[in-house]
Amino acid sequence: MALDLKSIQEAAKRIAPYIHETPVLSSDLLDDMAGAELFFKAEHLQKVGAFKARGAVNAVFSLADSEAVKGVATHSSGNHGAALARAAKLRGIPACIVVPDNAKQVKKDAIESYGGEIIECAPTLAAREQKLNEVVAQTGATFIAPYDDKAIICGQGTVALELIASVPDLDSLVIPVGGGGLLSGCAIVARELSQAKVFAAEPEQADDAYRSFLSDALVTSHEPNTIADGLLTTLGELNFGVIREKVDEVLLVSEDDIVSAMRLVWTRMKQIIEPSSAVTLAAVLRYPDKFRGRKVGLILTGGNVDLASLPF
Amino acid sequence: MALDLKSIQEAAKRIAPYIHETPVLSSDLLDDMAGAELFFKAEHLQKVGAFKARGAVNAVFSLADSEAVKGVATHSSGNHGAALARAAKLRGIPACIVVPDNAKQVKKDAIESYGGEIIECAPTLAAREQKLNEVVAQTGATFIAPYDDKAIICGQGTVALELIASVPDLDSLVIPVGGGGLLSGCAIVARELSQAKVFAAEPEQADDAYRSFLSDALVTSHEPNTIADGLLTTLGELNFGVIREKVDEVLLVSEDDIVSAMRLVWTRMKQIIEPSSAVTLAAVLRYPDKFRGRKVGLILTGGNVDLASLPF
Repeated sequence: MALDLKSIQEAAKRIAPYIHETPVLSSDLLDDMAGAELFFKAEHLQKVGAFKARGAVNAVFSLADSEAVKGVATHSSGNHGAALARAAKLRGIPACIVVPDNAKQVKKDAIESYGGEIIECAPTLAAREQKLNEVVAQTGATFIAPYDDKAIICGQGTVALELIASVPDLDSLVIPVGGGGLLSGCAIVARELSQAKVFAAEPEQADDAYRSFLSDALVTSHEPNTIADGLLTTLGELNFGVIREKVDEVLLVSEDDIVSAMRLVWTRMKQIIEPSSAVTLAAVLRYPDKFRGRKVGLILTGGNVDLASLPF
Repeated sequence: MALDLKSIQEAAKRIAPYIHETPVLSSDLLDDMAGAELFFKAEHLQKVGAFKARGAVNAVFSLADSEAVKGVATHSSGNHGAALARAAKLRGIPACIVVPDNAKQVKKDAIESYGGEIIECAPTLAAREQKLNEVVAQTGATFIAPYDDKAIICGQGTVALELIASVPDLDSLVIPVGGGGLLSGCAIVARELSQAKVFAAEPEQADDAYRSFLSDALVTSHEPNTIADGLLTTLGELNFGVIREKVDEVLLVSEDDIVSAMRLVWTRMKQIIEPSSAVTLAAVLRYPDKFRGRKVGLILTGGNVDLASLPF
């Protein structure tokens, strides 16, 4: 699978039976606040409550039958784990998800609700990799990385295909960056099918994409600490290769910016989004000069929050 | 203005420039839970975050110029006050809203954000009526009652016009009942334009509509106590006149039913609704035999919640 528009268009056909074509939402009040026309691609209304459903389905349904029969495995304490478990169930194959033993019960419940097998490990990178290697060695399962993977990137890029089909004359596209799966896939599409400038939005307290982009070298030393728990990851290699070429700018936002933007989406748009989804609106409101008078696409990436621990 | 389909169709034309035609939402997961096809009319995405925007605009724009110039007044601690303030602002006339002095700040802020003048009174029925009478005597403003009013009923009935236009073959329509403005307006429409059975959904702890319906006489002794704060009202006379003729059944739900249904809409549909909006889904899930295999329309009435005091 190549990292190009054609592979993303093929992914769109492959995943179509299994995902929602999500709506594009707008808000007069937020338009007024931003002085721009905002188009929110509502991936929090996607299957499993996040865009991750797309990449996982694309990866699982791209496997040859001989590979697929042995199942898939990954490590995840978030939406990718649930998405992969669901995709595997749709294909009728097993999924093992390695989860840190301090992961929230709600996340583990989601994985199990789709029939995924949870394997706990100590909450360290080394323990996670060791456990995953064990699982793969024992079962022959295919490891599906959460973002540093061509099939995942192509699946996530279908979000931009749909958004640009709905709003062809976007001036700007603003996309959260954590590992870079969504950003790299969407940047490939935007460069080919749109005149839109491509902005990444990233928490100041998880700024490895920002530093990598400015230094033009992948930053791997990284201790992220942000409420945007979907972005507590390190930028991937494949992802950075695309991003350094196709993204125009990385915009940083503070934790306060994120919580304020999240509150606006909750109270004004009445949409439940997780903090990672709010970084795009946070960036538009923090850097108004970049967006004033423009048509701006923003991706609301997911809506899986723990109602028992809200930031407001 | 008559209480009939024609008046509601005229209301739809009158209010069209000032309100959203809200979407109809669905959820595979909730369909599976209910064993039915559920169509949620999303009035929480309406202007001011509630269907009340419809009746208020219809009432204010139905006034003769000579009346309108003196302004409008009402009593409300909820969505009707904000909706009336907004409607008055759109027509360029003053609005006085009598509010109990223990009302939440968030409600008062909403009224003031639309330019309404807040007049506080002690939190009793007698104090409220006295204060409202004073305002009307001093200003000559027209009192716009929150539900026991023909223009309000006709405005709220436009919700059913839109829902039935979107889903013409509904088998059932489930509508919350508090004062009965929405229920009576929608029941008129449903009887004329649809084969759907019309169900009211009401909290057990605010069951005056249920008791009125069963006894065929308006119950006025009533001490409601429910988390569904939009339904802490007493059924109106005009409203009961319509409801006794055109509603098939009143379904009661418990406080636990309401909170569970609200949580489902938040976590599964990712939509922020207020507790009053959840009584319809609560009723569908509590009385599954009445709805199994049917196409069911439910009205999500509003989305104005205080994020600082959630029931979960």
